[in-house]
Amino acid sequence: MGTPRSPAPRRPDTGRSVAGRMLAVLGAFDASHRSLTLTALARRAGLPLATAHRLVATLTRWGALERDATGAYHVGLRLWEVAMLSPRGGGVREAALPFMEDLYEATHENVQLAVRDGLEVVYVELISGRSAVQVRTRVGSRWPLHATGVGLVLLAYGPPRLAEQVCARPLRRYTEMTIQDPHRLRAVLAEVRRTGIAVSERQITMEGLSIAAPVRGPGGEVVASLSVVVPAGEGVAPGLIPAVRVAAHGISRTLAA
Amino acid sequence: MGTPRSPAPRRPDTGRSVAGRMLAVLGAFDASHRSLTLTALARRAGLPLATAHRLVATLTRWGALERDATGAYHVGLRLWEVAMLSPRGGGVREAALPFMEDLYEATHENVQLAVRDGLEVVYVELISGRSAVQVRTRVGSRWPLHATGVGLVLLAYGPPRLAEQVCARPLRRYTEMTIQDPHRLRAVLAEVRRTGIAVSERQITMEGLSIAAPVRGPGGEVVASLSVVVPAGEGVAPGLIPAVRVAAHGISRTLAA
Repeated sequence: MGTPRSPAPRRPDTGRSVAGRMLAVLGAFDASHRSLTLTALARRAGLPLATAHRLVATLTRWGALERDATGAYHVGLRLWEVAMLSPRGGGVREAALPFMEDLYEATHENVQLAVRDGLEVVYVELISGRSAVQVRTRVGSRWPLHATGVGLVLLAYGPPRLAEQVCARPLRRYTEMTIQDPHRLRAVLAEVRRTGIAVSERQITMEGLSIAAPVRGPGGEVVASLSVVVPAGEGVAPGLIPAVRVAAHGISRTLAA
Repeated sequence: MGTPRSPAPRRPDTGRSVAGRMLAVLGAFDASHRSLTLTALARRAGLPLATAHRLVATLTRWGALERDATGAYHVGLRLWEVAMLSPRGGGVREAALPFMEDLYEATHENVQLAVRDGLEVVYVELISGRSAVQVRTRVGSRWPLHATGVGLVLLAYGPPRLAEQVCARPLRRYTEMTIQDPHRLRAVLAEVRRTGIAVSERQITMEGLSIAAPVRGPGGEVVASLSVVVPAGEGVAPGLIPAVRVAAHGISRTLAA
């Protein structure tokens, strides 16, 4: 994403730094820190307590943060409402959900939707049957591109430089089946482009097999990937690949409309 | 939500005002303004172009905003990721989705999850069959408490002062069936508390009938409401009320665990 050239601010390190500090407060929250005391917030944001106190008060008044009965802070509903306007988080997800429902009803397996952020996939929606194979993903979680079905799709259809960047770094290993060899990765990506489907078997856990297809935006560019994760070792049930393909096409059509 | 008392900031109108301006930039986006040029953003945020330019650059670098090929800005994926940590947006929704799936599969009607924010309900998740009756809600949309099934539940189980506040104001009318009379509203709320279910018929549109149940948090307090919206005029299908009740209990159990 491009960034406009900033004019030199009149007061060099007020505006910028206060804005940066405010974002540091938001960035202090993560999946294992959903609720933070003011002290913990200040420490994680690397801010003096008084500064954190002032910023947290402003964020809380606006609704970006909420304070619970114990006095701890968590991310607020108003920030969630604004964030749901994100095309890649909220928008694609909104268009995809009905088709994900259909796919879930047809398969009763894990149905996942992911987008690319830099060299990672971010899962924006998951539907899991209680009976379905356990997956290690959650909404908002990030995984490397080479090790997941959705990641292989987003890598195969990403800008040409992307595959080079990924292959230039060590490919992290999760199981003995995780792709380690850049040459093999390039061959897999070529196959994904040829078939329009990525099949990723036992790359993250030894239990899962993922079948992923590209979701295209109005311009025809690949903006997301849809996958079904089934138990590994049982092969790919007939009709599963067409089902994923049809659902992904449906989402693309909705985004184009 | 309480707000900590702020110590007098060393530089009165830098910290606060910059933080406020940054939130004004985020607040410039809404459902009908998901993508904004810098000029439109500055105008909607009430900021000088240079100030908006500087803040937008900071927000874009962090990932709170993203810039598309046309140069327009939209809410970024990183802000969405942080916002998904919101207990009321992301958390309750995450716990609820599997049960909402089950309810959708059992009914093939609209399944909705909402939380209260002040005097309004905010829908945090919707599952709609393409065959289901058209509803006017979307994820993130707000409606008054008195006119929706989920709203009646959140009102019935809200703090005592809440019903007084709502009854003290004019009750907005959407159809000839919308509750207008405060006395009738109080009677309806008593019935909701007695039965643990709210039935709202044709209050928002003449087509919809909503059946809503409370979702309770770990402390037993009502934190959300789950509803099914079916076509009005066909009465309530047998088993529909128990189905909503069971799904809502399931979500409450998950939140308690």
